[in-house]
Amino acid sequence: MLKVGIVGGTGYTGVELLRLLAAHPQVELAVITSRSEAGMAVSDMFPNLRGHVSLKFTAPDTQALTACDVVFFATPNGTAMQTVPELLRAGVRVIDLAADYRLRDRNEWEKWYGMTHASPDYLEQAVYGLPEVHRAAVRDARLIANPGCYPTAVQLGWLPLLEAELIETSHLIADCKSGVSGAGRKAEVGILLCEASESFKAYGVSGHRHLPEIRQGLTAMAKTPVGLTFVPHLTPMIRGIHATLYAKLKRTDVDLQKLFECRYTDEPFVDVLPMGGLPETRSVRGSNMCRIAVHRPQGGDTVVVLSVIDNLVKGAAGQAVHNLNIMFGLPETLGLTGIALSP
Amino acid sequence: MLKVGIVGGTGYTGVELLRLLAAHPQVELAVITSRSEAGMAVSDMFPNLRGHVSLKFTAPDTQALTACDVVFFATPNGTAMQTVPELLRAGVRVIDLAADYRLRDRNEWEKWYGMTHASPDYLEQAVYGLPEVHRAAVRDARLIANPGCYPTAVQLGWLPLLEAELIETSHLIADCKSGVSGAGRKAEVGILLCEASESFKAYGVSGHRHLPEIRQGLTAMAKTPVGLTFVPHLTPMIRGIHATLYAKLKRTDVDLQKLFECRYTDEPFVDVLPMGGLPETRSVRGSNMCRIAVHRPQGGDTVVVLSVIDNLVKGAAGQAVHNLNIMFGLPETLGLTGIALSP
Amino acid sequence: MLKVGIVGGTGYTGVELLRLLAAHPQVELAVITSRSEAGMAVSDMFPNLRGHVSLKFTAPDTQALTACDVVFFATPNGTAMQTVPELLRAGVRVIDLAADYRLRDRNEWEKWYGMTHASPDYLEQAVYGLPEVHRAAVRDARLIANPGCYPTAVQLGWLPLLEAELIETSHLIADCKSGVSGAGRKAEVGILLCEASESFKAYGVSGHRHLPEIRQGLTAMAKTPVGLTFVPHLTPMIRGIHATLYAKLKRTDVDLQKLFECRYTDEPFVDVLPMGGLPETRSVRGSNMCRIAVHRPQGGDTVVVLSVIDNLVKGAAGQAVHNLNIMFGLPETLGLTGIALSP
Amino acid sequence: MLKVGIVGGTGYTGVELLRLLAAHPQVELAVITSRSEAGMAVSDMFPNLRGHVSLKFTAPDTQALTACDVVFFATPNGTAMQTVPELLRAGVRVIDLAADYRLRDRNEWEKWYGMTHASPDYLEQAVYGLPEVHRAAVRDARLIANPGCYPTAVQLGWLPLLEAELIETSHLIADCKSGVSGAGRKAEVGILLCEASESFKAYGVSGHRHLPEIRQGLTAMAKTPVGLTFVPHLTPMIRGIHATLYAKLKRTDVDLQKLFECRYTDEPFVDVLPMGGLPETRSVRGSNMCRIAVHRPQGGDTVVVLSVIDNLVKGAAGQAVHNLNIMFGLPETLGLTGIALSP
Repeated sequence: MLKVGIVGGTGYTGVELLRLLAAHPQVELAVITSRSEAGMAVSDMFPNLRGHVSLKFTAPDTQALTACDVVFFATPNGTAMQTVPELLRAGVRVIDLAADYRLRDRNEWEKWYGMTHASPDYLEQAVYGLPEVHRAAVRDARLIANPGCYPTAVQLGWLPLLEAELIETSHLIADCKSGVSGAGRKAEVGILLCEASESFKAYGVSGHRHLPEIRQGLTAMAKTPVGLTFVPHLTPMIRGIHATLYAKLKRTDVDLQKLFECRYTDEPFVDVLPMGGLPETRSVRGSNMCRIAVHRPQGGDTVVVLSVIDNLVKGAAGQAVHNLNIMFGLPETLGLTGIALSP
Repeated sequence: MLKVGIVGGTGYTGVELLRLLAAHPQVELAVITSRSEAGMAVSDMFPNLRGHVSLKFTAPDTQALTACDVVFFATPNGTAMQTVPELLRAGVRVIDLAADYRLRDRNEWEKWYGMTHASPDYLEQAVYGLPEVHRAAVRDARLIANPGCYPTAVQLGWLPLLEAELIETSHLIADCKSGVSGAGRKAEVGILLCEASESFKAYGVSGHRHLPEIRQGLTAMAKTPVGLTFVPHLTPMIRGIHATLYAKLKRTDVDLQKLFECRYTDEPFVDVLPMGGLPETRSVRGSNMCRIAVHRPQGGDTVVVLSVIDNLVKGAAGQAVHNLNIMFGLPETLGLTGIALSP
Repeated sequence: MLKVGIVGGTGYTGVELLRLLAAHPQVELAVITSRSEAGMAVSDMFPNLRGHVSLKFTAPDTQALTACDVVFFATPNGTAMQTVPELLRAGVRVIDLAADYRLRDRNEWEKWYGMTHASPDYLEQAVYGLPEVHRAAVRDARLIANPGCYPTAVQLGWLPLLEAELIETSHLIADCKSGVSGAGRKAEVGILLCEASESFKAYGVSGHRHLPEIRQGLTAMAKTPVGLTFVPHLTPMIRGIHATLYAKLKRTDVDLQKLFECRYTDEPFVDVLPMGGLPETRSVRGSNMCRIAVHRPQGGDTVVVLSVIDNLVKGAAGQAVHNLNIMFGLPETLGLTGIALSP
Repeated sequence: MLKVGIVGGTGYTGVELLRLLAAHPQVELAVITSRSEAGMAVSDMFPNLRGHVSLKFTAPDTQALTACDVVFFATPNGTAMQTVPELLRAGVRVIDLAADYRLRDRNEWEKWYGMTHASPDYLEQAVYGLPEVHRAAVRDARLIANPGCYPTAVQLGWLPLLEAELIETSHLIADCKSGVSGAGRKAEVGILLCEASESFKAYGVSGHRHLPEIRQGLTAMAKTPVGLTFVPHLTPMIRGIHATLYAKLKRTDVDLQKLFECRYTDEPFVDVLPMGGLPETRSVRGSNMCRIAVHRPQGGDTVVVLSVIDNLVKGAAGQAVHNLNIMFGLPETLGLTGIALSP
């Protein structure tokens, strides 16, 4: 049994992590911290966990955390970077679900996140935890930067095409739609039911923090800097991301369906739909699966990839558990075989 | 391993049953029939099951079913009653998720369901599968009439009060709200997203088929005929039932909280909330739990019970699996420990 | 043209009032105040008003308000009572959409609202603006206490029965369901889309501020104190209230349908549905109509009334404009003939 | 007063047309036909119209229609083309909200709509009723082909850029999202609340009927054939279209904001948001407005246009009434000044 700690478990990523870890056969939930809710039973805040999680939130306490085998950070950006070095030095492994270690370039990070990085030396050694790309590195990692939700859906959608050098990389377009849980569990007017339901809008068009993260990943795949337009949209639902990806093909004589199927044939959490497929976000609700379909409308030279995930699972907590499994040599799908809830 | 067959798996109850059974460690899904969809892969109809269920729908075929240990009927009302006798004679156990065997009184059944009962002799021997009331009988049952969704939420809400003879039974009021999945997966205008979302309405006020079922159950608990007003409402969400139950107390000197906690202390799927609790349907979404709170507003002589379930799980497929576990001597919670998905 | 001022126009009641008043042919919007948003164009906060309202929010300023013929308060409870006396003394008429003047009993008000009333002398002279009951008094009123949303739906539902002394008043039950906009435009976690959609729950069971308001109104109609159990529920939609009202009939030989039709025959904003009707909240979305149906399930002695309104219109801004029309001798339906938006 | 007939008023376009025409000061609703619902009161089918529309559906009857000044067709594709010639010969003007006369090329039409055109001679003389482009022709039109919903949002979004020859036309990308009402009021499983809410998906990727319509319009604006990728998505809400349009700029030295503002300065139903604007579909719910914002992310050479409409109003019934006003020399905004309902 792995002793697991969670820092900051009061958001949607936190409760989803708790849901998954509470059912994980090799995990013992040892400690969960929250500065604001210390003393409260976790299941009082999240009644779905009644009978499954008996822990109480405790005040942040490094000693309790260093007694763990692994600590997850489900904190706002800029928190993990304060404590992570100490935990690593104590031999604890860390999986950060926030963005603190996702960008390798410190300047880029400080520009997009608007603060000075507290432990920039670790940017280099952190492993970007997208298992389909970095599995080997994850195995040996001490510090995982768990990918963002949009970056997960987008990178998995373009990976086969970029690796095969099939698309022009100067004008990539990622039109992405996210459920409202992607905005977190924060008391903000814009994500009230009365504001965000029965409506649809774009946001962050001039620049979203996931843009440099996606660009970094695509550039590595393409082995050349890519030109990317990324437009996220707020969608009136709780969970789910749908990425619609557009690129110009360099050649049209390749069997794209086969390409995708081959690339992902051994991946437990990527499902390539049959030719002509149209993935629905609900088909992955609550599950760690990414479902992908590839299209070439009217047989032209534009390739359209449709990629869906549950932003809280494959886009956050589920991928974090996947990384945990890989890091500790467990079967990759352990604790992650839950079937999507539909309808 | 139990060999399990499902008759009629193309509705919401069916897909939910498949989700639960596919993950059940003692179940082997042997056959699933659908007249209309024979030949189609189950996971083509329900993409959430891709990678979990490899069966195809087959045409109804008694021989394949008699090779099973147990057969679930997830068919429209009036279908199971045609085939059940033959299966029972062949030694197969049956769990009917439809209403064919829920009422013990044949005339009552025929009046409410508007057809002649095809196997009325079995009305008497069918066991009404509400484990919290009929556990012993379920253990020995060959034929289970799995309770309806509203009846489950309502009966569990009033059970402790009726058993303790604490409420006047002449004017019971059950104001119930159901998500739209309760109406089934049928191509009907009234349950289109554009008709049923962003709106709320009552229906079946003059008489709903669950009324006699609830009345039968309450009458047995009260050991006297009850007067019941039951008003169901269509609620703009997919899953969930919330029953708000009103009754007049005969005495106000009883600790109702304690009464409920004691009655359900050993029940794995009934959770009595702490004093003052307000159960949300989402706290049971996808889980087999019924959460209940009991209130006495302003300390008066009216008791208000709030009872929530997921209509597709505790109100249908989950309760059916619970009955399966009891019938075959398995741990009651086997395959039913999934945590509710929230948010 | 009436010069109209609005105090506190940044909530949902405020924007709805603006929508109605901007289209009212006898109204000139002169001033709208907001302490927090002073200087901001109203249509920057509410883009649906672009091209229709060119005002900016200004800081609260009694002088500007006293230049108006009438001032609407769309403020939190406890605000209007500070300023209203001064405005009244200046000859301005006031319509308060908050609860400051709804209860005639000062002690009752201070108990439920948890503060000392700043202008208790006006509790007596304020007119409770439910036109169907108090039309004559509204005509001459200087100060209108505009009814709450639940109280409007509930009182209109029981009015004919209480006036005719047809129901027992000791155990009235009002099971009410409201869209989330009833909770206002506040940054609170509980009304986030991810918390309040796809879920249903009761709240305020132990005591809701609309309880004394409803009780006061029903008691006046019944000419005797009534016993009322009132349970409000949060419903996953933006607008709409559905009240399901239960009472025991003293006599069952009265034509209830006729009773309701006669009582409301001249009311422009109450629509009695034909026998057996099941009003949907969407049938009044955006309109000032209250639609009502009366049922006697199974011909028993329990009468069930279904009453629906749009909480922001007939339950707030629309009723306020109705009161304005009556106070100033305008046609009652002026500016209120908009048809409900459906689907 | 114009005598107006409606053919086929039982869908969402029909009820919206009724809502608008019932409030139009220069319109007398004379006849509304429906083969299936003949004899039924319109307000029995659409309770929001109770008290506003007293007509009953009548069986289709050319004589009643020829007594009208103008007839709207809100019928499925392929119906209007049967009757329109006869009405035109009788001197009646026609506004077809279906697609029968939208494409000028008969072969193209027959290919996409899968049937033989019954009155192909009229394809040439029909005026495509996008007032912002064809106002002069609309004035003199006898037969209006009212634009589709996606085509309206997309064409208005690209119009200024194409007229100014600022974008490369070989790889235009239109990523569009529509509420479910765009699919019509049909009993189909795919648009049930339980299927289409809490989920998001693309559809028609390989080819949607609005593709040739959009391409025809853009080609006319560009005066050269355009290459267009059009991907529509089903969005979990009732009303609203959001078009996100991507194109490569030929030059980046043009003030795009000014370009859009100038082009639409005199248009009553196109609202260009201030720089950086992010239009929400709810800001046009129930109104005839199209709100547009133009962006150049990170100052690059990709222009992103965001264009929102209410698919049932500006995308259907409202635009039809706008065309009516123009055809009959009425003020263009008559009956179309309703403010969007928000929240």
